[in-house]
Amino acid sequence: MSADRKPMPEIEAASWLNSPPLTIEKERGKVILIYAFQMLCPGCVTHASPQVQKVRDFYGADTLTVIGLHSVFEHHEAMREESLKAYLYEFKYTFPVAIDTPGIEIPIPQTMAKLGLRGTPSILLVDKKGRIARHFFGQMDDLYLGTEIGLLLAE
Amino acid sequence: MSADRKPMPEIEAASWLNSPPLTIEKERGKVILIYAFQMLCPGCVTHASPQVQKVRDFYGADTLTVIGLHSVFEHHEAMREESLKAYLYEFKYTFPVAIDTPGIEIPIPQTMAKLGLRGTPSILLVDKKGRIARHFFGQMDDLYLGTEIGLLLAE
Amino acid sequence: MSADRKPMPEIEAASWLNSPPLTIEKERGKVILIYAFQMLCPGCVTHASPQVQKVRDFYGADTLTVIGLHSVFEHHEAMREESLKAYLYEFKYTFPVAIDTPGIEIPIPQTMAKLGLRGTPSILLVDKKGRIARHFFGQMDDLYLGTEIGLLLAE
Amino acid sequence: MSADRKPMPEIEAASWLNSPPLTIEKERGKVILIYAFQMLCPGCVTHASPQVQKVRDFYGADTLTVIGLHSVFEHHEAMREESLKAYLYEFKYTFPVAIDTPGIEIPIPQTMAKLGLRGTPSILLVDKKGRIARHFFGQMDDLYLGTEIGLLLAE
Repeated sequence: MSADRKPMPEIEAASWLNSPPLTIEKERGKVILIYAFQMLCPGCVTHASPQVQKVRDFYGADTLTVIGLHSVFEHHEAMREESLKAYLYEFKYTFPVAIDTPGIEIPIPQTMAKLGLRGTPSILLVDKKGRIARHFFGQMDDLYLGTEIGLLLAE
Repeated sequence: MSADRKPMPEIEAASWLNSPPLTIEKERGKVILIYAFQMLCPGCVTHASPQVQKVRDFYGADTLTVIGLHSVFEHHEAMREESLKAYLYEFKYTFPVAIDTPGIEIPIPQTMAKLGLRGTPSILLVDKKGRIARHFFGQMDDLYLGTEIGLLLAE
Repeated sequence: MSADRKPMPEIEAASWLNSPPLTIEKERGKVILIYAFQMLCPGCVTHASPQVQKVRDFYGADTLTVIGLHSVFEHHEAMREESLKAYLYEFKYTFPVAIDTPGIEIPIPQTMAKLGLRGTPSILLVDKKGRIARHFFGQMDDLYLGTEIGLLLAE
Repeated sequence: MSADRKPMPEIEAASWLNSPPLTIEKERGKVILIYAFQMLCPGCVTHASPQVQKVRDFYGADTLTVIGLHSVFEHHEAMREESLKAYLYEFKYTFPVAIDTPGIEIPIPQTMAKLGLRGTPSILLVDKKGRIARHFFGQMDDLYLGTEIGLLLAE
């Protein structure tokens, strides 16, 4: 199964919040959860953002790294960095967030395009060798997300 | 009890979304629910906004009017009209929203100051005679809110 | 509307839990909520029983009386008084409960038959004059239940 | 870590519901989730029973076996087999359930005593070699339960 896992490319971040810049390269050896979201996407606000913060709180920073990826592909003016900062602050989200670099002449930002994401919320799980092991779109059940994380932690 | 109810003043709106401008005067004869909120206030996002939309959907427009009042008193840059529009659109909120006029030299907007609101979410219930009958701050239980509305509808 | 409200008949109770026997007659002047349930009915266990306890806790005993009516019409052996007692005790339900008198040669107990209940959970709201003002079957939203109670309290 | 895992003893069942009798021995090669519960324990009814059914539905029967263990140690008369059957039927629980054999001269049933369970709900996770790998008491978060299952599935 793991034979066809592709390498997770580095994130093209315009800037970072809650953290200095992170690289996939330096996180090697840990499982990485990449959470692509938009701060005004209902499925993100009501389900995925609290879930991702819970993941962040559950697992030790030595074993699992959470990276939020703010990939705005609609309502760009409504979700600028100033608004995102207030969102993270008010909801007490402490996980690192990379702001995806805007697309050139297209509404899709660059990392989102490179990863082929279908929308938000999306969750990618990266294995300890830096390869994309799972790619989900939509709302995931905690039980299922936990299982997938457990399987990757055990590799 | 109703002897000391004070008149609900008119809303000082910079603009309206989801509706042409409304006045307390013209809604006389109906119960009015005024919902003061901020689009990035967690108690509003997770509890009060869906509740207020439910109120809007439950009661006939002939008997009860819902008016959202976007009273931004913090993170002003983060919650501008462009962002508010996207919030209402994405969450499918259809109730009328007045954008409270910014304060002059103070962060508190004008209607919020005039009403003496303590923060968001706040809910005011206005009786059929245009007087403030109830004033709540914080998250209200549906059972309690329903009872208060029922009592006012029966007057 | 109130012209066609029928009188609430007295409950035919085999026994009472959490309270000495109550009568509709003596509760006149208050709104009465009659909650017909079965202790193993999922809609009762997960929604209506906690809701009814909340109603009991919300309103003063001077204005509203809650009466549970344990109307077992299926799995009779599974929901005997001994089991019901443990259910009320373990879930900390303190509202008065009348155990509906078993039917003679039919599975439907006597008060349930007399009231024409379709199943459980059912909620009847009795007005201050002892008449059935509302009759609901299934799970009720708190907002709606609160409104109906408010309207009756105001009569 | 796995060095000090003790063998899961066989369940002392008075009878089985939803399944022919199962043995730990025959399930070797799969992860086994043992769910000790009482049908009138609130933490079981509102949280753990639906969670365990979800586990049952999530994982293939080839990889994970769920076994409910009805270990009644209080209100014995209230939770007899007749009542348990109605509970499982009404809530549509399809996982196998062993009824723990009553204790001799003590209220604690035999498997519960042998396993040293502190109360209900309790969840034991048994590894593919038939050894107790995890032992939890109380309500578990889905994310955590999923992770633990994932770790054991990967062994």
